[in-house]
Amino acid sequence: MVHASIITIGDELLIGQVIDTNSAWLAQEMNKIGIWVKRRVAVGDLADDIWNALDQEAAHSQIILITGGLGPTADDITKPLLCKYFDGKLVVNEAVLKHVRYLFEEVFRRPPPILDRNLRQAEVPDTCEVLFNRAGTAPGMWFEKNGRIFISMPGVPNEMKTIVKDHVLERLKSHFRVPAIESRTLVTFGMGESAVAERIKEFEENLPAHIKLAYLPNYGMVRLRLTGTGNNSEIISGEMDSLFETLKLQLSDIMVTDKDEPIELAVSNLLISKGKTLSTAESCTGGFIAQLFTSHAGSSAFYKGGMVSYANQVKEDLLQVDHQTILDNGAVSEETVRQMVKGALDAFKTDFALATSGIMGPGGGTETKPVGTIWIAVGNRDKIIAQKFNFRFERKRNIDISSYNAINLLRKFVGDHG
Amino acid sequence: MVHASIITIGDELLIGQVIDTNSAWLAQEMNKIGIWVKRRVAVGDLADDIWNALDQEAAHSQIILITGGLGPTADDITKPLLCKYFDGKLVVNEAVLKHVRYLFEEVFRRPPPILDRNLRQAEVPDTCEVLFNRAGTAPGMWFEKNGRIFISMPGVPNEMKTIVKDHVLERLKSHFRVPAIESRTLVTFGMGESAVAERIKEFEENLPAHIKLAYLPNYGMVRLRLTGTGNNSEIISGEMDSLFETLKLQLSDIMVTDKDEPIELAVSNLLISKGKTLSTAESCTGGFIAQLFTSHAGSSAFYKGGMVSYANQVKEDLLQVDHQTILDNGAVSEETVRQMVKGALDAFKTDFALATSGIMGPGGGTETKPVGTIWIAVGNRDKIIAQKFNFRFERKRNIDISSYNAINLLRKFVGDHG
Repeated sequence: MVHASIITIGDELLIGQVIDTNSAWLAQEMNKIGIWVKRRVAVGDLADDIWNALDQEAAHSQIILITGGLGPTADDITKPLLCKYFDGKLVVNEAVLKHVRYLFEEVFRRPPPILDRNLRQAEVPDTCEVLFNRAGTAPGMWFEKNGRIFISMPGVPNEMKTIVKDHVLERLKSHFRVPAIESRTLVTFGMGESAVAERIKEFEENLPAHIKLAYLPNYGMVRLRLTGTGNNSEIISGEMDSLFETLKLQLSDIMVTDKDEPIELAVSNLLISKGKTLSTAESCTGGFIAQLFTSHAGSSAFYKGGMVSYANQVKEDLLQVDHQTILDNGAVSEETVRQMVKGALDAFKTDFALATSGIMGPGGGTETKPVGTIWIAVGNRDKIIAQKFNFRFERKRNIDISSYNAINLLRKFVGDHG
Repeated sequence: MVHASIITIGDELLIGQVIDTNSAWLAQEMNKIGIWVKRRVAVGDLADDIWNALDQEAAHSQIILITGGLGPTADDITKPLLCKYFDGKLVVNEAVLKHVRYLFEEVFRRPPPILDRNLRQAEVPDTCEVLFNRAGTAPGMWFEKNGRIFISMPGVPNEMKTIVKDHVLERLKSHFRVPAIESRTLVTFGMGESAVAERIKEFEENLPAHIKLAYLPNYGMVRLRLTGTGNNSEIISGEMDSLFETLKLQLSDIMVTDKDEPIELAVSNLLISKGKTLSTAESCTGGFIAQLFTSHAGSSAFYKGGMVSYANQVKEDLLQVDHQTILDNGAVSEETVRQMVKGALDAFKTDFALATSGIMGPGGGTETKPVGTIWIAVGNRDKIIAQKFNFRFERKRNIDISSYNAINLLRKFVGDHG
């Protein structure tokens, strides 16, 4: 099996100012072409630490992917160091220089002159192959040393991804004889990780050595991923299909989707397939549900709109929630969320509506309605159902898990009454 | 300087199924007590790789923080390995066992019997000090070996954070003589990273060796963080204050906040301090702006509510956007967003309103209005301003950067007309 290491360079990673999303994306892309990421290492902008990491990872892996340390405000440590490490000298690459000028003059429309630190992005070690960066000024660099491949890329996610898709994947595939890799993913809702594991214990124990099962629990969901490796993609694909069918059967009652997709996308496709429309009336979730649905292309096909009715006056004025209802039961009550659904169905003229009202914290909790109490309602013109939940997390997590539970209630309701 | 390494264990990190947010949080907490995270390493659920990482990081750092590999569905590799690595044997910890029973019976309310794999969470190596985990079943473990400190914790963020705050920080502070660390952060908007760097070139070049400046660009903002290290916290603090004042003066025209806070929180506090209220009318940003404001505690003090007017019909019915206006100019136009602001001010009865309408992609672009075109308007009863932007990213990034630009327009407007 071909092994890769990922080295991320930059103090910002070590002081925790930035969360490393590049490594996860890189790992997924490597997996798709049958390369296993064995280690990920983050080091700061220190020559010794970077050099040391290059030596160390070269001992672990055939491929060393390096991100960061190349930006215009980087402390000019990484590029000279790569020059030294790969016995080269810095030379200006004319194609890159032309591109940098183009970006600043035509795209960014920055007033001249172009800063030195930007022009210097065109300097590369003469011992590397330049991987042209359509998306930015810092080019990628491909080095080979002692049978190892080192690929240096800028840390800006969008630029790194462009370079990988444009150049890196194809070159790696043609350079290594990589195995066939197949994966299947399904998502469950409402059962704990260990309970799910217990239910499919036998299935998991009987998996052949070349097929692995990974659990990824989050927000009441568990994402199960089967990954199989082999030499013949057709054989492994058939093997995976039949195993996946078995797994789906054993989890059918709690399965949300049998694709590697977020739950809101599964519900979106369900609504689109039925030609039904949706509106939302969010109090405590504050628009999080709306932005989950609308973050995916094509959402306008079923999502008409939503109300963030944060103030009670808004619930009354724009969702026709009865003033007395709020006085008698409070804004966080079954009666209120039921009326919010009615109000949304009328205001937005949709087939289905979803409503939330709760106390997300840290303040606002009471004896009878502690922080984490939330009422969720979903319905159509004929029927409205409501359910109460109690969560015990901090504010943001309460909002997120409330939203995912609301979307799951919607999924079930549309399935039963769509 | 005391150095720490972070080791994260788990295949899910290496197949990219989960993004590592723990390391960034851990690094920030370590920095606050004057400990520098020198390296971060991620390895899979493989005994050799974990053992190897422990040896390697012990050569780099005095403190080795380990997260992951302890969950009930973990492949039972990490704990036995730690047992072996620290020459201990697994014993049941009665306090933890009692806690596990309590969680399953009283908190999770799971039907008995409690699964073996859950009860086994109470088994710990007899060579560790148990770090009690209020938030979950897997306890933290504190080991010492050859003058190095190894701290093993579960990978679930909420549980890891609870253990660190309850036990780890205090113990580390009393165990090491850590230096004083001070940091100051400000955020700029609307100027590129390299242009900002160019403007403060001299300031940066004249910084003393013990004070560092870090740049973190994102969504048109640049977060600048000064970090100083010294022996006397008062001296370093005074030094930092005067340097920070100089930096603020040089960037005053583009500074959004002089605190380490997100821009929407700076605007929220501005509105609260002025006793003014806000509503939002979002088309293309789909509720992202609303959820940014409401994700912070206390937002109900100024945020009354918002409309996600995704369909044109909703813009007309609920925001009184003139039908003819949309016919003549399209939904993505200055006239439409101006009317959306009016509609929101009336519907939500607020002092200020913010509106967005654009084409986020991938579909929907035209010759005259390509993907990335967005109109943003902000106003009060007396005045409404509108501005057009063109972004060139994929859908989600277009949504995010549009939202942050809208919030920055609001910030300026409230500053000028609040």
